[in-house]
Amino acid sequence: MRSVLTGPDLAVAAHYGMMQYHMGWLDENLAPISVPTGKRIRPLLCLLACGAAGGSPESATPAAAGLELLHNFSLIHDDIEDDSATRRHRPTVWKLFGLPLACNAGDGMFSLAHTAFFGLERNDMRADQVLAALRIFNQTCVALTEGQYMDMSFEGLDHVSVPEYFAMIAGKTGALLAATTEIGAVVASAPPEVVAEYRQFGAALGRAFQLRDDILGIWGDEALTGKSAASDILSKKKSLPVLYAMADANVGPQLTRLYAGDLFQATDVPVVLSLLDQAGARAYVEAEVDKTTAEAREALAGVAPQSDAAYLAALGELLDMLAARFS
Amino acid sequence: MRSVLTGPDLAVAAHYGMMQYHMGWLDENLAPISVPTGKRIRPLLCLLACGAAGGSPESATPAAAGLELLHNFSLIHDDIEDDSATRRHRPTVWKLFGLPLACNAGDGMFSLAHTAFFGLERNDMRADQVLAALRIFNQTCVALTEGQYMDMSFEGLDHVSVPEYFAMIAGKTGALLAATTEIGAVVASAPPEVVAEYRQFGAALGRAFQLRDDILGIWGDEALTGKSAASDILSKKKSLPVLYAMADANVGPQLTRLYAGDLFQATDVPVVLSLLDQAGARAYVEAEVDKTTAEAREALAGVAPQSDAAYLAALGELLDMLAARFS
Repeated sequence: MRSVLTGPDLAVAAHYGMMQYHMGWLDENLAPISVPTGKRIRPLLCLLACGAAGGSPESATPAAAGLELLHNFSLIHDDIEDDSATRRHRPTVWKLFGLPLACNAGDGMFSLAHTAFFGLERNDMRADQVLAALRIFNQTCVALTEGQYMDMSFEGLDHVSVPEYFAMIAGKTGALLAATTEIGAVVASAPPEVVAEYRQFGAALGRAFQLRDDILGIWGDEALTGKSAASDILSKKKSLPVLYAMADANVGPQLTRLYAGDLFQATDVPVVLSLLDQAGARAYVEAEVDKTTAEAREALAGVAPQSDAAYLAALGELLDMLAARFS
Repeated sequence: MRSVLTGPDLAVAAHYGMMQYHMGWLDENLAPISVPTGKRIRPLLCLLACGAAGGSPESATPAAAGLELLHNFSLIHDDIEDDSATRRHRPTVWKLFGLPLACNAGDGMFSLAHTAFFGLERNDMRADQVLAALRIFNQTCVALTEGQYMDMSFEGLDHVSVPEYFAMIAGKTGALLAATTEIGAVVASAPPEVVAEYRQFGAALGRAFQLRDDILGIWGDEALTGKSAASDILSKKKSLPVLYAMADANVGPQLTRLYAGDLFQATDVPVVLSLLDQAGARAYVEAEVDKTTAEAREALAGVAPQSDAAYLAALGELLDMLAARFS
């Protein structure tokens, strides 16, 4: 990733510097530092899937870098679109360097995410394989922007259905995670039906990951998540527990009225928590996590005969860790 | 382009609707209309270059569409970054739909520009050719964002040199125009040395195009350009005539002081025009247009033996038209 995110000359040094700041490699004055850089789940999934599908994980490194850069591009632009001032306890790129330069730095990272994929050619991959990986990557980019559109459009709607929610997260979170394992399998030259199972695994893992996120956003332990307790309630986020409870015949109308009103007071939080409790929202989402985790495990079992057992086990462990995480 | 810019379902209809609005296909309420849509120079150059290099122009249609979509993506984001409220006499996308949705719609069009390129596969192109076209396209995306960074960073600088200016337009305007003819030749399966000449032609044409733009921005006829006379002076744009005059030993210091001060009054315009005149700025830029037009013509002459005469002549005519245009 560092080789891709390095500018050709001094005239554009700060353009690349903003991207490196976002990655946690530079400080606010664009001097080298080292800060927490996010979980790097996406490249890890890609490398493990490549190894599990019978390839050499190193051969997938360029694709893994491209997927992580795409994720980080989307964070730079999401922070602009959501008006977020901080990320990982640091000012966001737009907050620090201004919106025009940050928007363009995001576009730069979007372009460089594609550039990373051309590194696959250096690893002796056939042109049709590189092209297949790029095609999946491109469909992922399109799905990401559709998911982001849906997410933003939900904010202005009084009513969002549970199926609409699942369509949104399929784009915003699921598409990229599905692409990590699918592309890993493509790089490993796995046959199409095996590639499809790896994609299924990534998609289900992505869903479980997002649903766990929704649970942590409401019931997470502040000391572990690093976000304030019930942060998703205070920001009136229409996450799955809330949408499920809004569809409940008993508590739905009251909850919907609360969310349609002005900003919450901190004193409203216990009321919302109580309504979610009466609707059984947490139990419902936990059951959905279990269901989708089982689907992911099934996809893994389906490819076990054609896969490397050690890498496959590592994918299973990563799934369990992400689905049951506390932060 | 229309097939690429059509959404999969109703949930994202407005996301694609914003892109179609920008293209001039929909009105502010996302109902069908037809308004002037820009010059479509980029796809035209790509198709003509493909024909001239011995290919069938239709085979390059997906690439031509991708190049025009990339151009339009960059306009949507440039309008955000430059805080521009109108384009082609209509409200810009961000002005109409808000910055968050517009930024994301731009990302969507950026993604779909890549999607268009995969249409080359349907035209029976070999995977390595499609990949070669995509690689050029990717380098173009990177160069575009570098050029836009330089352009924005120039606004905050008191001193920009003429070489820095040429580096900026090479990214912001030149890279995309160079890619149109280079990709056209690649799609035509031209040999590498011929492809390189076609790229040279596009790059020189792009430079001539931008320099003419700089001339029109100061001395253009308001009735023909549709912009107010001397619009680039009023917006204090550091275009080549201004930078050239700033480097002039006699008028440079006074001009630099004027541009470093507060916003101009309309009464300052004649002063600036007089300083540019004393420095011979217009004659200098006109000579640069002639020089770069000659370079472009030389590139065309270099590939004449391997090219289709009729398409080559059309490229030459387009060059003359763009270098000498009045609007």
